[in-house]
Amino acid sequence: MSEETDRSGLDRLMLFSDGVFAIAITLLVLPLTDAEIPEDGVGAALVELWPQIFTFALSFAVIGRYWMVHHQMFGRIVRTDTRLLTLNLFYLFGIAFLPFPTSVLGEHGDEAAVVVLYAGNLIVVGLASVLLWSYASYGQRLTSPDVTPRAARASLAGGIAPTLGLVPSIPLAFLEPGWAKYSWLLIIPFSVVGDRLFPQTDA
Amino acid sequence: MSEETDRSGLDRLMLFSDGVFAIAITLLVLPLTDAEIPEDGVGAALVELWPQIFTFALSFAVIGRYWMVHHQMFGRIVRTDTRLLTLNLFYLFGIAFLPFPTSVLGEHGDEAAVVVLYAGNLIVVGLASVLLWSYASYGQRLTSPDVTPRAARASLAGGIAPTLGLVPSIPLAFLEPGWAKYSWLLIIPFSVVGDRLFPQTDA
Amino acid sequence: MSEETDRSGLDRLMLFSDGVFAIAITLLVLPLTDAEIPEDGVGAALVELWPQIFTFALSFAVIGRYWMVHHQMFGRIVRTDTRLLTLNLFYLFGIAFLPFPTSVLGEHGDEAAVVVLYAGNLIVVGLASVLLWSYASYGQRLTSPDVTPRAARASLAGGIAPTLGLVPSIPLAFLEPGWAKYSWLLIIPFSVVGDRLFPQTDA
Amino acid sequence: MSEETDRSGLDRLMLFSDGVFAIAITLLVLPLTDAEIPEDGVGAALVELWPQIFTFALSFAVIGRYWMVHHQMFGRIVRTDTRLLTLNLFYLFGIAFLPFPTSVLGEHGDEAAVVVLYAGNLIVVGLASVLLWSYASYGQRLTSPDVTPRAARASLAGGIAPTLGLVPSIPLAFLEPGWAKYSWLLIIPFSVVGDRLFPQTDA
Repeated sequence: MSEETDRSGLDRLMLFSDGVFAIAITLLVLPLTDAEIPEDGVGAALVELWPQIFTFALSFAVIGRYWMVHHQMFGRIVRTDTRLLTLNLFYLFGIAFLPFPTSVLGEHGDEAAVVVLYAGNLIVVGLASVLLWSYASYGQRLTSPDVTPRAARASLAGGIAPTLGLVPSIPLAFLEPGWAKYSWLLIIPFSVVGDRLFPQTDA
Repeated sequence: MSEETDRSGLDRLMLFSDGVFAIAITLLVLPLTDAEIPEDGVGAALVELWPQIFTFALSFAVIGRYWMVHHQMFGRIVRTDTRLLTLNLFYLFGIAFLPFPTSVLGEHGDEAAVVVLYAGNLIVVGLASVLLWSYASYGQRLTSPDVTPRAARASLAGGIAPTLGLVPSIPLAFLEPGWAKYSWLLIIPFSVVGDRLFPQTDA
Repeated sequence: MSEETDRSGLDRLMLFSDGVFAIAITLLVLPLTDAEIPEDGVGAALVELWPQIFTFALSFAVIGRYWMVHHQMFGRIVRTDTRLLTLNLFYLFGIAFLPFPTSVLGEHGDEAAVVVLYAGNLIVVGLASVLLWSYASYGQRLTSPDVTPRAARASLAGGIAPTLGLVPSIPLAFLEPGWAKYSWLLIIPFSVVGDRLFPQTDA
Repeated sequence: MSEETDRSGLDRLMLFSDGVFAIAITLLVLPLTDAEIPEDGVGAALVELWPQIFTFALSFAVIGRYWMVHHQMFGRIVRTDTRLLTLNLFYLFGIAFLPFPTSVLGEHGDEAAVVVLYAGNLIVVGLASVLLWSYASYGQRLTSPDVTPRAARASLAGGIAPTLGLVPSIPLAFLEPGWAKYSWLLIIPFSVVGDRLFPQTDA
């Protein structure tokens, strides 16, 4: 198979992935557009929709962050094969599913089961991301020869760091369900520390 | 018409197809986000949504698999013409329709009519896939000259194998509607055997 | 502005247009996935949904046809400017609006107002298509120098022919609303005659 | 990082952005397809839906205009980095959110809170656009060396001009909520004057 055809296979993989990312991130608004707003007091109703607006912003940031990590990984991948396509589909499965936990979280954010569902979904995405990158980078199977081991570790850390920040919310969900989702803010320091330890030299 | 313009025609066909695939696969989540979840007992409600979650995963895997087959076919096609565009639209019609049977199956999975609708939709996609490839590859009409007859047969088998795995579910739907959908798991061995007999040398 | 940048401007225009086409064509399924299906007698309910299934197929064919015409036009356009972007947005407005008349037609197909709404929408798309092509091809403003006047007329006819086939349905809607939509089948002979008189030499 | 890889990073950014633009603009039709239309008097019901049709057209024009401005900016950007990706995500957040104010505006267009929500959303998009361009063009950080200061100011004005046209509607919303939305028509002269003062030499 010529290098040129390889390129086109990789282009379609990214095209399709970007489509799924873009659609999943845009569908997040649907629970808001579908919300019932009573004729009197739109202002108050908008304030009441605050949990849905917050989860929209949260999931938008999460999908956006994963898109950036995906983007960095595939900037270092130069070839594709059937297994990579399959692993990528598994990864996208997690992205396409996220509007469901987002919608449930917006309506019932204080229950343990919902917190576990949401965090669980994102942990699956994180694991799929690690799997995808490990497969592609092992022995430079599908990566560019100029990817240094340092850059390879940076891509791996990009998937692991936010996932680690989610784990504490699962036990917390059973102790203090109302507080568990705030522990997701741990993603931010975990990601920042991850980016410091394993810097991405480029976008 | 220059080769360069040909390329751009083919690029748009793939762009549009990938768009339809990506949207259809992402819309599958809508019956889940639209589901009514009562205020008490979100955990139990989530368990009750299991059939919808299962059909989401099933249709995601099916559309993902067909995307991969489409991807392999078009990796071997180098030119396009009006008939190919029309056949491809017919193919995409089947993909864009699938969220409907998926939604019905999630709610009423034990009825014969629903099983027939779902399997029938996928059989139409399989037939469209065979038609598309036969048209493109006959006498190397639109395929690359370095596509061997062996590779041509592999692409054909990629469309036929999962389709054959669906056929038994249709008579079964009238005998044991509740069990018919499990017979779809036959797609997996059929696809694996198909891939073994007619190996895809590349993605 | 360099030729290379021109190319990239045109690529984004097509990317965005293909996105709108792909999404509009895939959203057509939503009235079907949202349909209420009673627990008993799914088979009968599916038969009752026939008008919605028919309008899904009709609008899918219509958007698909317009995508092909758009595709042929832009295969002959090599440059872009702000006015072309604006005209194209106006054209896409008509495409993105179509799921609304489609949904109304599926539920209330026998009323004159609905037939006029649907046909009116498509006539606007046809006019936008004629406007777009006339602007781009006038004095080879934005078209490739190797576009013959014959090919320019073929692209024009591609937009006009199906539009003409829709016009008779508007007076007919007031006389026999139930029959008016069947007069849309006139699109097929009009398109075929148009393609014969002004053949597209390529896709 | 090679120039070629840079190009591919930028291509994915635009691909993803165009996806979000295309989906957001196409989702605007959903409040229309979801509208309840009584069996008798479809014509009258269609007339009653006029506010929703108007807000569909308004938001379509707004997203279309922002897409064109985005398109012009990125026609002048040749490199990408992590900060640009993040700023672009923030920008797209504003675009993806717009279907929500659009839907509320269609139903409750005469209330101050709704006018503020809609105008506020667009002002955020305008500010994100200014931020994005300032970051990219400051000291030609990520822009092409042949971008003149004049062209840089034109791109900046493209984001500021429509935003300024929206500001008067916010105080007006508290005085005359029913009239505030008509003040948005100020966007047109503001944009025209902006384009005159800082002409875009190309698309």
